[in-house]
Amino acid sequence: MTVLYWIDLFGVAVFAMAGAIEAARNRFDLFGVLVLAFVSALGGGTLRDLLLDVTPLAWIGDLTLAYVALISGFAMFLLAKFVPVPFRIMLYADAIGLAAFTVSGTQAAIALELPGLVVIMMGMASGIFGGILRDIMANEIPLIFRRDVYATASLVGAMWVHFSQQLGLSTNVSIVVGFTLITAIRFAAIKWHLSLPAFLNTTSYRKENHPREL
Amino acid sequence: MTVLYWIDLFGVAVFAMAGAIEAARNRFDLFGVLVLAFVSALGGGTLRDLLLDVTPLAWIGDLTLAYVALISGFAMFLLAKFVPVPFRIMLYADAIGLAAFTVSGTQAAIALELPGLVVIMMGMASGIFGGILRDIMANEIPLIFRRDVYATASLVGAMWVHFSQQLGLSTNVSIVVGFTLITAIRFAAIKWHLSLPAFLNTTSYRKENHPREL
Amino acid sequence: MTVLYWIDLFGVAVFAMAGAIEAARNRFDLFGVLVLAFVSALGGGTLRDLLLDVTPLAWIGDLTLAYVALISGFAMFLLAKFVPVPFRIMLYADAIGLAAFTVSGTQAAIALELPGLVVIMMGMASGIFGGILRDIMANEIPLIFRRDVYATASLVGAMWVHFSQQLGLSTNVSIVVGFTLITAIRFAAIKWHLSLPAFLNTTSYRKENHPREL
Repeated sequence: MTVLYWIDLFGVAVFAMAGAIEAARNRFDLFGVLVLAFVSALGGGTLRDLLLDVTPLAWIGDLTLAYVALISGFAMFLLAKFVPVPFRIMLYADAIGLAAFTVSGTQAAIALELPGLVVIMMGMASGIFGGILRDIMANEIPLIFRRDVYATASLVGAMWVHFSQQLGLSTNVSIVVGFTLITAIRFAAIKWHLSLPAFLNTTSYRKENHPREL
Repeated sequence: MTVLYWIDLFGVAVFAMAGAIEAARNRFDLFGVLVLAFVSALGGGTLRDLLLDVTPLAWIGDLTLAYVALISGFAMFLLAKFVPVPFRIMLYADAIGLAAFTVSGTQAAIALELPGLVVIMMGMASGIFGGILRDIMANEIPLIFRRDVYATASLVGAMWVHFSQQLGLSTNVSIVVGFTLITAIRFAAIKWHLSLPAFLNTTSYRKENHPREL
Repeated sequence: MTVLYWIDLFGVAVFAMAGAIEAARNRFDLFGVLVLAFVSALGGGTLRDLLLDVTPLAWIGDLTLAYVALISGFAMFLLAKFVPVPFRIMLYADAIGLAAFTVSGTQAAIALELPGLVVIMMGMASGIFGGILRDIMANEIPLIFRRDVYATASLVGAMWVHFSQQLGLSTNVSIVVGFTLITAIRFAAIKWHLSLPAFLNTTSYRKENHPREL
């Protein structure tokens, strides 16, 4: 369980940083940065706890999570004052956070002995919702919908954690491999612009050709 | 109660399809489509369950709902690969889902013996929030705020279900009539562009004339 | 406790008005206005109750809150039909609501004997989330991220309420001073355009220079 905790803390730190970078692009001030860092880092887990009616919320029960989120966001705020932080870094930080939270969310649902489909969806929800909240607050289409192989990576990792433990793999090995797997898939997708078949290819479907007022 | 369940399932299916069409307009990939379909179809009911502290959530207690949402979204993903799906179809699907969820949400609140105002607001919240989440995630102003006679249709239907049962009408009749009523109002509004008085008529109020930096 | 209740009711009324004005700028119809007014006025408190697992929600347990939100939103709808309502009024209404909800949220968390950090964060969450929901629904970047000294004002007020009571100040005095403090900070910031150091100053970081497609 300790391995899971460290992965979770690591995820909180990097997601807070990704939130801070997103805030940078939108030129928020210090406390705006901290709010976005906090919501990014703890939003996915909070949603999972709400959906599963877990009380108290993870970050209320263990304030270390909250402190790590705030300190990481603040550190990135300072860092970005002095060093240019390219947007690409945000994509990689987001990928690591996605991996960490998918894995820890899946494990939390397994511990509650929920059905397999729910386990996998809770893993995905934990992984993707922090980033969705971050992007919605910055008035962007969430990264999950803009970047390819994003939900896919989370799905693959959540399925791995679920099924590998069903087949008897030890929790720690399952978690570490799942975390590595998601991170690797997303890193590869970012680096080589991998993509799944898009929903529609024809340009006739582009939004600008389908205005609301028809 | 069976009638209600079938209406609810039907609502899940068409809202998932509406979500998938919205995703199409934004060119999401397969799993992005499924995420948006799922959130659209089950978001309103999930919010209602959270607000009323119902545990477990409807779709965790009955996985059929989750499967119907995912399969409907996937079917629409495939369909739209081969057949053009005009945006107008999304409006009609959204209308049916709005009707189904308003009715089932109202009935769920009646079953908990809540006060009338809460019953009606829970019905509306169930009906409108799936669509609001869908549109927020696609970075649009929610349909409820862009289209006329939307919240109104939901309100009328929720009030009908509440008051007709207060006056002794049987649940099934009340539900079916309420569902038909909301659907009819929205279909008429879509077809003939019906509208309530707008908040402001003068063009001097348009947003472009009131930039943030004043 | 009565003082707190009146501050809370006052916050509901002005936040509902702020939501109605935001709706005006986006030309919503009557029920769209009421939905946005309701979500603005009661969204922050609802989130707090969900996060702290308080049942029933404040506005379900006390319908006065719901009625005040709806009536205030409706009154603003009527008013704006006849009188021009400048956007600046919305900023001031938002400031008063921020103050009221930060104070009442902090006090609610103190009553649950939560740790200091959680008390302060719940105060802030209660204060800022109604406005965040309002702006997200209107497809804007939330005011908290656009306006300076916003999260800061809420933070200062929440810390004041928490620490002043830790030091033995009576609840009522602490609340009233905290409310006044937040309102004063925000009013001053609106009037004189005060600001904290921005996250980044160099124009090289502007979003338009960092498109998604890199």
